[in-house]
Amino acid sequence: MMHRKALDGFRWDGIDHLPYKEEGSVPFKDISRQVLLSAPELSGELRYFEMGPEGFSTLERHEHMHGVMIFRGEGHCLVGDEVRFVRERDLVTIPPWTWHQFRATAGVAFGFLCMVNTQRDKPQLPSDTELEELRTNPTVRAFLDGEI
Amino acid sequence: MMHRKALDGFRWDGIDHLPYKEEGSVPFKDISRQVLLSAPELSGELRYFEMGPEGFSTLERHEHMHGVMIFRGEGHCLVGDEVRFVRERDLVTIPPWTWHQFRATAGVAFGFLCMVNTQRDKPQLPSDTELEELRTNPTVRAFLDGEI
Repeated sequence: MMHRKALDGFRWDGIDHLPYKEEGSVPFKDISRQVLLSAPELSGELRYFEMGPEGFSTLERHEHMHGVMIFRGEGHCLVGDEVRFVRERDLVTIPPWTWHQFRATAGVAFGFLCMVNTQRDKPQLPSDTELEELRTNPTVRAFLDGEI
Repeated sequence: MMHRKALDGFRWDGIDHLPYKEEGSVPFKDISRQVLLSAPELSGELRYFEMGPEGFSTLERHEHMHGVMIFRGEGHCLVGDEVRFVRERDLVTIPPWTWHQFRATAGVAFGFLCMVNTQRDKPQLPSDTELEELRTNPTVRAFLDGEI
């Protein structure tokens, strides 16, 4: 069996902690990724993403679905044109081709488990036009501007 | 989006809590199942199993792999001929065709998340001969007899 012990600070023995590099105009802030469960025999993967108290994930969409469980702290997520407050152990699914973003809005580290298919497409970023369209919704705009 | 709020007691809004029925000579004790993430677009499922302070899961094996994260409390697991103490956030994978069982050994509720392929085979239970073979290992025997 593989047994990886939990370490302090939401890290795991033998699992790479991958902070996303922030260079120039990047569409995310203060977020890291750890791949917790992945194997050739599994058709899904379980990853853990964590943002610092001011962090947010990339605003993106793709064909594949995300199955998410909030794992640490609380914050908000945008899915389509809905913005929700979510906290530890809440479950969220993100349907195919739906814009989504997670944002630490409570001044605390905000982490979530994300289950995906191992075989999946690459995310798309919004064009300027798509972003403008998203921002016509006042709630979405407030979320994107970090005002929630 | 689907958003299911976490409720007290490791339950979730809108998710069935399925206690396994204990009738006659059953190979498990005081365990329940909740399917947390499952959708036609996902090739994996995430389930949450929880045992009471004296509970244990079925001793079984199958072709499909389990990817496990301990989610509540602590206890022991048997995987093949290895017995491990595991606690909150530890990760365990159970390879194909490997006998495995989880057991609450610390006098507390013991729960784990389990990721599996949506398409998978049914578990096998050990025959009397296989159980005898397993019990030749003193550590495995102590685990199976609840003496750990």
